[in-house]
Amino acid sequence: MNYSEASLEMHKRYKGKLSVESVVAIENKDDLSTAYTPGVAEPCRVIAADKERAWDLTIKGRTVAVVTDGSAVLGLGNIGPEAGLPVMEGKAILFKRFAGIDAFPICLATQDVDEIVETVKRIAPGFGGINLEDIAAPACFEVERRLIEELDIPVMHDDQHGTAVVVLAGLLNALKVVGKKLEDVSVVISGAGAGGMGITHLLFEAGMTRLAMIDSKGIIAQGREGMNSYKEKLAARINPEGRTGSLADALVGADVFIGVSQPGLVTADMVRTMAQKAIVFAMANPIPEIMPEIASAGGAAIVATGRSDFPNQVNNVLAFPGIFKGALEGRIRRITPAMRVAAAHALAKLVPEPTSEKIMPSPFEPGLADVVAEAVKMAASYG
Amino acid sequence: MNYSEASLEMHKRYKGKLSVESVVAIENKDDLSTAYTPGVAEPCRVIAADKERAWDLTIKGRTVAVVTDGSAVLGLGNIGPEAGLPVMEGKAILFKRFAGIDAFPICLATQDVDEIVETVKRIAPGFGGINLEDIAAPACFEVERRLIEELDIPVMHDDQHGTAVVVLAGLLNALKVVGKKLEDVSVVISGAGAGGMGITHLLFEAGMTRLAMIDSKGIIAQGREGMNSYKEKLAARINPEGRTGSLADALVGADVFIGVSQPGLVTADMVRTMAQKAIVFAMANPIPEIMPEIASAGGAAIVATGRSDFPNQVNNVLAFPGIFKGALEGRIRRITPAMRVAAAHALAKLVPEPTSEKIMPSPFEPGLADVVAEAVKMAASYG
Repeated sequence: MNYSEASLEMHKRYKGKLSVESVVAIENKDDLSTAYTPGVAEPCRVIAADKERAWDLTIKGRTVAVVTDGSAVLGLGNIGPEAGLPVMEGKAILFKRFAGIDAFPICLATQDVDEIVETVKRIAPGFGGINLEDIAAPACFEVERRLIEELDIPVMHDDQHGTAVVVLAGLLNALKVVGKKLEDVSVVISGAGAGGMGITHLLFEAGMTRLAMIDSKGIIAQGREGMNSYKEKLAARINPEGRTGSLADALVGADVFIGVSQPGLVTADMVRTMAQKAIVFAMANPIPEIMPEIASAGGAAIVATGRSDFPNQVNNVLAFPGIFKGALEGRIRRITPAMRVAAAHALAKLVPEPTSEKIMPSPFEPGLADVVAEAVKMAASYG
Repeated sequence: MNYSEASLEMHKRYKGKLSVESVVAIENKDDLSTAYTPGVAEPCRVIAADKERAWDLTIKGRTVAVVTDGSAVLGLGNIGPEAGLPVMEGKAILFKRFAGIDAFPICLATQDVDEIVETVKRIAPGFGGINLEDIAAPACFEVERRLIEELDIPVMHDDQHGTAVVVLAGLLNALKVVGKKLEDVSVVISGAGAGGMGITHLLFEAGMTRLAMIDSKGIIAQGREGMNSYKEKLAARINPEGRTGSLADALVGADVFIGVSQPGLVTADMVRTMAQKAIVFAMANPIPEIMPEIASAGGAAIVATGRSDFPNQVNNVLAFPGIFKGALEGRIRRITPAMRVAAAHALAKLVPEPTSEKIMPSPFEPGLADVVAEAVKMAASYG
């Protein structure tokens, strides 16, 4: 199937993919007077007296804004807000399909950090949560941090954290298959953008300490050239001893490779230098860091990619609908790393007997988002 | 029927009135790969190459933002963005019900003119039009003017212009019933807020010249105390001779009273001083400037109100869905006074034989929004 052609055709036929519908019928004057004036003044009055009531009298309690500035859309780069809209609409329909959450795309005509933060804060009253999407690093880190601090609703940059949750879930099952322990394995993460940062922080939170992050200049280390404040902070956490070297150097003896970087960075020979029963998550899109066949030829025991045409697809649709569902249902103000780790464990458990070809549950598994939502709420209850 | 209770119950039961739905099914991996990644990259690429294509490949071409700052919601005043949300949701369902347009509420956490303008401009890429709603005068005038100048999509403050179109439509039919001519009659407009300003300007555009606007200090006139720049400009247009006086003074001999002001301002005695076959539109909500029975007792030939429980309801749902439908279908950048006058004439004609009890078409009249939309597009084609 040619997904590009089919998708263009679909978008032309329907003029986009979303529809805003009424949940109440408007067939006569009484309906009008109840849903609109004069009746609607009553819920307005109730909320005016107590703003909290917006959560149960309006769409706020079940609605998420999917916000982008169009600066890093898919692998297409900085294509702007209009061109990012098909992805944001897609995200919105996945929220509905997989978690019953109403979501609406907001595509911003600015890529300035202060202006993004300011704008999202100003439109926040009508939403129960903010899903940041496809905002380039490092701007995305500051945008997310400030919005989390300044808003009273949950904010999550999915490119960082949704991906991270699914990677951790897959890794938990992959380690089970190869019989290695989380706290023992050595992991190399290639890519220091939103995905790489989110993944590395989450693996650390989950208890993995032998982590090396590689950017275009090699292993990140404090004081190295080409660092930024986010890399410095992460390096202080995972590389206190100040290791340096290339991707190839880092891979020697490593148990796990996680790529959120560039096509074709990894060769079969490099995989051969990894530890026995190596695990390779090559998630560059649409062309992975190493093709699955080649990784296997190099001795990898388990290979995952971001693609739907290979086994073990790392697809963040497994995570974000359930995480926001849990956050909204639990009226959770901040989605913490502990909640994301819990979500990953819950996802991993949905594959009771993982194999090298099946470390991920299917997004179509009934009730999947509920399992994730419950894990998030449970983690929240532990404080 | 107690609409307040019924409405509160409705809002509790459904948690608001809107639902964001997918127009495409997502039942398997192929669906996911077409609506979302990797297929969705193709419409993104097409729009990145030509931004105009967002109009036919995304929801932009059929979606309107309903924007409020919560500063003048219904007759409730400055109740804030959260409390305004039930009204904005209601507006959105009316857009869908009456014109098939997708609309989404945006409730702003600011009431500063510069910030409102800036924020709406930043979220505009994903919308085909902006319906401003329940923003207090005089801020609403500047917000609308600047957004019309600075955006390339149609912007309309419905409280000014939607109401004006419906008033003009009703007035055209009322004049037909009493056998008076548009260009001859003397009209008194009570209320210098958004509604009064929009109505007075539109009546002038429609060819009525004998207009007097009354605010809390009497007839507006250049240089009078308590004027603002918007009143000054309007006074220069409709009151060059500098008439002064009270509402009671203005009504003596007048043919038409139009109230968008305060309950109970007009007495039966005041109506008695008006010309024969007086027309009274008393639209203060929920309690009119004069109750219909009392206006009739004072000799009014035709009475209209904003309420659904009396004949001749002035309801802007007759106007805004069709106006935006026409604007979107015609890719009209600016909704002009000429388009609004055309819309009013089209609405009036939908009542082929108006009577004193029936000067307005029913909003449920099939195809009503199409008639309005066609009138708008026709007026646009005259340039």
